[in-house]
Amino acid sequence: MTDEQRQSPAGPIRVGVFGARGRMGAEVCRAVDAADDLELVAAIDEGDGLSGAAEAGAEVVVDFTTPDVVMDNLRWCIDRGISAVVGTTGFTGERLDRVRGWLERSSPGVGVLIAPNFGIGAVLMMQFATKAARYFESVEIIEQHHPRKLDAPSGTATHTARLIAQARAAAGMGPAPDATKEEVPGARGADIDGVRVHAVRSAGMVAHQEVLFGTTGETLTIRQDSYDRVSFMPGVLLGVRSVRQRPGLTIGLDALLD
Amino acid sequence: MTDEQRQSPAGPIRVGVFGARGRMGAEVCRAVDAADDLELVAAIDEGDGLSGAAEAGAEVVVDFTTPDVVMDNLRWCIDRGISAVVGTTGFTGERLDRVRGWLERSSPGVGVLIAPNFGIGAVLMMQFATKAARYFESVEIIEQHHPRKLDAPSGTATHTARLIAQARAAAGMGPAPDATKEEVPGARGADIDGVRVHAVRSAGMVAHQEVLFGTTGETLTIRQDSYDRVSFMPGVLLGVRSVRQRPGLTIGLDALLD
Amino acid sequence: MTDEQRQSPAGPIRVGVFGARGRMGAEVCRAVDAADDLELVAAIDEGDGLSGAAEAGAEVVVDFTTPDVVMDNLRWCIDRGISAVVGTTGFTGERLDRVRGWLERSSPGVGVLIAPNFGIGAVLMMQFATKAARYFESVEIIEQHHPRKLDAPSGTATHTARLIAQARAAAGMGPAPDATKEEVPGARGADIDGVRVHAVRSAGMVAHQEVLFGTTGETLTIRQDSYDRVSFMPGVLLGVRSVRQRPGLTIGLDALLD
Amino acid sequence: MTDEQRQSPAGPIRVGVFGARGRMGAEVCRAVDAADDLELVAAIDEGDGLSGAAEAGAEVVVDFTTPDVVMDNLRWCIDRGISAVVGTTGFTGERLDRVRGWLERSSPGVGVLIAPNFGIGAVLMMQFATKAARYFESVEIIEQHHPRKLDAPSGTATHTARLIAQARAAAGMGPAPDATKEEVPGARGADIDGVRVHAVRSAGMVAHQEVLFGTTGETLTIRQDSYDRVSFMPGVLLGVRSVRQRPGLTIGLDALLD
Repeated sequence: MTDEQRQSPAGPIRVGVFGARGRMGAEVCRAVDAADDLELVAAIDEGDGLSGAAEAGAEVVVDFTTPDVVMDNLRWCIDRGISAVVGTTGFTGERLDRVRGWLERSSPGVGVLIAPNFGIGAVLMMQFATKAARYFESVEIIEQHHPRKLDAPSGTATHTARLIAQARAAAGMGPAPDATKEEVPGARGADIDGVRVHAVRSAGMVAHQEVLFGTTGETLTIRQDSYDRVSFMPGVLLGVRSVRQRPGLTIGLDALLD
Repeated sequence: MTDEQRQSPAGPIRVGVFGARGRMGAEVCRAVDAADDLELVAAIDEGDGLSGAAEAGAEVVVDFTTPDVVMDNLRWCIDRGISAVVGTTGFTGERLDRVRGWLERSSPGVGVLIAPNFGIGAVLMMQFATKAARYFESVEIIEQHHPRKLDAPSGTATHTARLIAQARAAAGMGPAPDATKEEVPGARGADIDGVRVHAVRSAGMVAHQEVLFGTTGETLTIRQDSYDRVSFMPGVLLGVRSVRQRPGLTIGLDALLD
Repeated sequence: MTDEQRQSPAGPIRVGVFGARGRMGAEVCRAVDAADDLELVAAIDEGDGLSGAAEAGAEVVVDFTTPDVVMDNLRWCIDRGISAVVGTTGFTGERLDRVRGWLERSSPGVGVLIAPNFGIGAVLMMQFATKAARYFESVEIIEQHHPRKLDAPSGTATHTARLIAQARAAAGMGPAPDATKEEVPGARGADIDGVRVHAVRSAGMVAHQEVLFGTTGETLTIRQDSYDRVSFMPGVLLGVRSVRQRPGLTIGLDALLD
Repeated sequence: MTDEQRQSPAGPIRVGVFGARGRMGAEVCRAVDAADDLELVAAIDEGDGLSGAAEAGAEVVVDFTTPDVVMDNLRWCIDRGISAVVGTTGFTGERLDRVRGWLERSSPGVGVLIAPNFGIGAVLMMQFATKAARYFESVEIIEQHHPRKLDAPSGTATHTARLIAQARAAAGMGPAPDATKEEVPGARGADIDGVRVHAVRSAGMVAHQEVLFGTTGETLTIRQDSYDRVSFMPGVLLGVRSVRQRPGLTIGLDALLD
């Protein structure tokens, strides 16, 4: 690949996928393939070797692999001036520091986006909830998932509750009003940093969350419904399109939705 | 009043209200007044004496008084051949038996309707939920109320859960699927006869309930929202219009919504 | 198969599937296979010949084929004393009459269920909406589907509106209150027999419908969400389990949800 | 009133209300009275004369009067160094320019907030919808109001649609996908700058709006419900508490929710 290729404003972005035969990776391959402004140039999985991505001129690599190989993959990309969008889990503070170190010594213009959640709707829901938190005296969260889920409440609901609790504390708000005197245990939900969270489990559901805000005479509801793992694809593609404009390390899709 | 008046099919039904200056009674007066096929002939409260209702030719009396006077009021109505629609609370099995005894010895055609809940939407919600219960492997209830409410879950939610549990048992259904292994206490709600019930308390809310049913690939939701005590008026008026066609004692609005 | 097998109360129902390699038929095979009280004994498609179903001792056949072969299939089943659950389309009044004629001459105990819609949630939604119609002065329908749908509103929404309109007419109700004076064309939806129906089309949606009822101070909402064609399977299985208890012709899943 | 009183950080803000016997003004009086950090020092209506507000040491005036007197009221406040929160309608560009002119010549620290809508939930809904617009290929609006409303869709829904249309245009987005070929007229709603808007009218409803966003495999819904004109009070009080920190003219509650 020449610099001309890499910087061509007119051509599609050349994308490689690591973990291309996994469930998420396979969806990424399909989504990249279907997008007019992106070109899938390398679909790589265990046993393939990474060099195919460089030979094919990948400008951005999407990594949905495993914690034990992702650091080597990232090092390899950064050394070659290839930007990366990473959905693989297992990033500790120490790991993030190492990635930052590699990026400081890399050629300029290399960006890495590491995101725990590529659902644009979920990320916007959290942003909006954080903003609304200080204007409503009451707030509760209801999350609804399929009955095979092991934890209750969901990680997204817990994270949303913590963001709301922080925003309320920063605005000097006290606890939400609640006169409950007689409660059948559990009726009022789980208490996550003072925010009540209710977890519904039902056949026929996939992944849904509602944040309910209330003040005198009005309520505001923010609801997000995911039906499929393909719901993460618009977020992954947004990352692919944006990562080269954000040199260095970016953590969370949140930063791209400003 | 002559028999002709009472039986006239063309004229409006002549209605008296006992407890007319109470919150509910005052709303009943307004609602009767606004209905073309009803005529408010007597609005009676503490200190007025009941005889005004007989003198005014009331055919149906609506009673929203207190447990300590309602039995005397009912006896008085039944003795005079006046039908009654009763929203006053405090009816034990023994009290209901006494009312039945009076009705057996009364002139034919006298009906008494005693209902704990005149919300047509709430009663239909419970009927529909009972019917749907046996076709969906999963069911949960979310009720949402203003934050001044003392009990959680609400009486209506608890009653709905019990009706659903009975319908599931009658259909030989086992527990709803739920793989939860790690639960922050309360996240999965209260367990009412095996049905999970979640209670939300928020400023800006009045009285709301959702029953969520789920099976493979689909969900069915029945939701009821009350904004005001005037929401009971259509049920009270339905009672007034129907009670004379139901001689004897009728318990619950349910029986009128067949 | 002996009579003993056929009538055995303890054993699973022996099921054959016609159209077994089609999208719906394949799902039926999977669903029958997964049910403890059913046994998939024959999966038959174009070119296989029907006799395999008789040889395998099928007690009930599920037919998801095409209008040009379904009549021959049904005749074959009825002649052999095999009951049938039919999701194939194209049944005219004349065709239904011919099926009735065959059933009259068949061995007793043969049942045929022909249903245009096996979604239990959708069928219950229509039943509940029909019942609620007479108690609420206002009613509107909102249906929401994926953006590839060609017609607006959906067939289910149109059918629901007609059932509601009939129930309102039977109860002597006039039009719903509506003071609209200035309307941007289309804002108030389509008028289906006097019931307003709104059709939303959006990426990320599958098939959803809400029926909104309103009266003084309260609303009642019935909502159904389908995520997948597997949502029809509980209805198909209900048909398989019930059809032999309903000798003769049954039209619509509705009759089984009484 | 001394400067000390006016600037005292510890004491409550001294509030006067113009139009205090009108529906909105009376609610404002109640809300100010109930707030610990505000003190109602003057409740003024037609015939009372404005001077009572100055004599009582009002620091902020809330004006819910009529277009024919509001300009004189504002001039009077600004001349006396009293800030104002204005819900009265009828502000043209020419009127706003005159207010700006008065403020330039006033003592420093006088602020005027003129807002067409004091519903915090509605304003946040519009902000969030504008932000989400560029990330979802599909968007539609459903607004639901009581049946006495004269226009369809509502002003808020129309305004929301225009904000969304502008945000989509700015992001270079084309029309939302929609394959509809056969439409019963009106089913797909009103077209407001390319955004479909559906207006439901029903007894039992007050004022509700949903903005539905959809993309591959997920939807995001922002919903606002108002039950009462008291729903405007938190917005009015936010204005009262903020207006003195914003010298000059501020238009719209939006600016305070940044």
